Amino acid sequence: MTKTVVGFSKLTKEEKIKWLAKTYLSDNKTAAATIKKYWNDDDELQQLHDEFIENTISNFYLPYAIAPNFIINKKPYTIPMAIEESSVVAASSLTAKFWSGRGGFKTEVISTIKTGQVHFMFEGDFDQLQDYFNSIKPALFESTELITKNMRKRGGGILEIELKNKTDKLKDYYQLHVSFETKDSMGANFINSCLEAIAKTFRKEKIDIVMSILSNYIPECLVRAEVSCKIDELGDDAETFAKKFYQAAQIAEVEKYRAVTHNKGIMNGIDAVVIATGNDFRAVGAGAHAYAAKDGQYRSLSHCSIDDGIFKFWIEIPLALGTVGGLTKLHPLAKLSLEILQKPTAKELMQIVATAGLAQNFAALKALTTTGIQHGHMKMHLQNMLNQLGATQAEKIELINYFDDKQVSFSMASEALEKLRVTKQLE
Amino acid sequence: MTKTVVGFSKLTKEEKIKWLAKTYLSDNKTAAATIKKYWNDDDELQQLHDEFIENTISNFYLPYAIAPNFIINKKPYTIPMAIEESSVVAASSLTAKFWSGRGGFKTEVISTIKTGQVHFMFEGDFDQLQDYFNSIKPALFESTELITKNMRKRGGGILEIELKNKTDKLKDYYQLHVSFETKDSMGANFINSCLEAIAKTFRKEKIDIVMSILSNYIPECLVRAEVSCKIDELGDDAETFAKKFYQAAQIAEVEKYRAVTHNKGIMNGIDAVVIATGNDFRAVGAGAHAYAAKDGQYRSLSHCSIDDGIFKFWIEIPLALGTVGGLTKLHPLAKLSLEILQKPTAKELMQIVATAGLAQNFAALKALTTTGIQHGHMKMHLQNMLNQLGATQAEKIELINYFDDKQVSFSMASEALEKLRVTKQLE
Repeated sequence: MTKTVVGFSKLTKEEKIKWLAKTYLSDNKTAAATIKKYWNDDDELQQLHDEFIENTISNFYLPYAIAPNFIINKKPYTIPMAIEESSVVAASSLTAKFWSGRGGFKTEVISTIKTGQVHFMFEGDFDQLQDYFNSIKPALFESTELITKNMRKRGGGILEIELKNKTDKLKDYYQLHVSFETKDSMGANFINSCLEAIAKTFRKEKIDIVMSILSNYIPECLVRAEVSCKIDELGDDAETFAKKFYQAAQIAEVEKYRAVTHNKGIMNGIDAVVIATGNDFRAVGAGAHAYAAKDGQYRSLSHCSIDDGIFKFWIEIPLALGTVGGLTKLHPLAKLSLEILQKPTAKELMQIVATAGLAQNFAALKALTTTGIQHGHMKMHLQNMLNQLGATQAEKIELINYFDDKQVSFSMASEALEKLRVTKQLE
Repeated sequence: MTKTVVGFSKLTKEEKIKWLAKTYLSDNKTAAATIKKYWNDDDELQQLHDEFIENTISNFYLPYAIAPNFIINKKPYTIPMAIEESSVVAASSLTAKFWSGRGGFKTEVISTIKTGQVHFMFEGDFDQLQDYFNSIKPALFESTELITKNMRKRGGGILEIELKNKTDKLKDYYQLHVSFETKDSMGANFINSCLEAIAKTFRKEKIDIVMSILSNYIPECLVRAEVSCKIDELGDDAETFAKKFYQAAQIAEVEKYRAVTHNKGIMNGIDAVVIATGNDFRAVGAGAHAYAAKDGQYRSLSHCSIDDGIFKFWIEIPLALGTVGGLTKLHPLAKLSLEILQKPTAKELMQIVATAGLAQNFAALKALTTTGIQHGHMKMHLQNMLNQLGATQAEKIELINYFDDKQVSFSMASEALEKLRVTKQLE
């Protein structure tokens, strides 16, 4: 039987599932039922979710959870997170509580400029190109007026259009480099629409436009979050803790193999809030990791200092986020997340998200430099493994106790469960 | 009223929601109902999802969709994707179809080595440290035997343990650098458990262990995917298309502002499959973006060549994925995704995921260098905007037609809908 299909997108959702089940899932008689089990009972709500993208057949569940007790610039927050990885929300909550008694998180937005480019090839004389650009620049702004009308009302719009000579990097390659302020919207569609209008106006004989597109590299859309306290306020064995923590942070500054994982942990916190608020985590991840490599070596996004008895830990990270547009208001749970966060502006959301990243990183370094990461993590993960092994509630309680002071892997959990069952049978 | 809480994690799910609604959502009388509307009717299934992480209050829906007609190494695939961004699945399907008639995707796994480190500080003489390491190395392997037992049965385990002197980067800083083969599991828990056991055995006076942790930087866990054909097989105006496409790829090689967005587009395809199969997209993103910056400048992960009339486009990307362990078999839709993909090994999944990334990138460059990205994207997005504006089915059809040849933004859509309604009233 052929496993390809013609006209698939035109099929109804039921027909798509039928084709899929018949073609790829014939061994699994409950496949179609499993897919439909995840549909929402409310047809209208389900249709809304179906229409977000194409060829939708169901809803993929990510656990939606909340981490309370964050204090950011003296204001309390409960942070919604959508993430499949255990420990992240627990670690967030613990860190939030820890710092709430030590002055909380202090945050500030450093800059909010986004950029986009019209990339083009030009074989002629640069001075002529520069003259042409100077003469047409007002028309470039004019060509976007209809698109930028509402954004300008909100205080945003196009900040500047520059001609950039990139021929040192690639023969005949130039850019119109355009800076934007997009206020409370992430701005991807806005920026792309502006750039395409600009390109259309700029187009001319001998100017060969390659593409017009926003950049996800946003080193000038930057936010900072920080925690600090006197070393002796850090709890038991504060000196040793501070020293180890500082060493771990130093290592992530200089060693790429560690820096990548260090930043991955930061993204655990960041992406969970990004998703929960209907924002685009691929854009955020690309911008953040590229920023980590900005000086030619990939480094940690967070930093630690110990000076005059003060422990300080902070992050500086570029974040392109929106609280209007995209799915932010359209996805009912994204909208609710923004309500939980007390309807933040995009700048406020940047600060909340940076806080979630720093908190997650603090929790990871704290665990790594004290008990090790596996103790807490595997305790959380053990529950999942036991579910997978079909353990009963009573068996789960017994085995979670049993593994409390032990190493655990899937095979160990499996063996322990088996042994427990044999013992119970013998009793 | 205080907005912080004590003992939150001990509350039941109902109590958590009640506290949240009372404390942060008092203006929204339907908030609790909205949260519960996303619960699954099947209590047991819901409990399974609740237990994946902590403080779960509901399920965050990501659209779950499928892209058919991929041919990878001559075998047909339908690829499941979980993603909130419109256009990604449509672009995947179109690209799959395009290349299915031109030889399909050719892929290969280049390497599968993962790494982890025990990071430590040591103030003494390096030769002495080296001697100690040499003498204890067998014991380090032995200390992990119980943990690696099952992995070794499957042909994996610890490949090598090396002592690395990193004092040129940071005073007194050394590593045990450990290489792993983790077969069909992503291996994070396995690697971390091994490293902690190794660190425990290695620990000694004067050796100050800072932390033991896997690395998400995996330049030796690499997969390649490629498409190629004769230029004149590329369709209408093939020469111009190939040239523009090549230029766009070249620009992403040399210009960071473009490279980040280029790779972000790749991750649209990759992360959608990573999530749908229950894998960890933060790990994948961190590893991929750091790899893009491996030579000191952040560059594109995909490359294009035109030689002897042959157009070739390929990606080389590090991917740490599992088809066992984690949520892969535990999340019913992740498990189903792996069934749809014909129960791949981790190596096969690497190739499928790399294909999804390359396909997405091909579609983006194709759109960017021909019609522009906004035409297709806004058409998809228009539907979402109209839903948000509360347009009826009839109004949607009318406005989608209206905007077919026009620029569109949210305010334009809103104005057009208003105008349409006024016109209808007058009629």
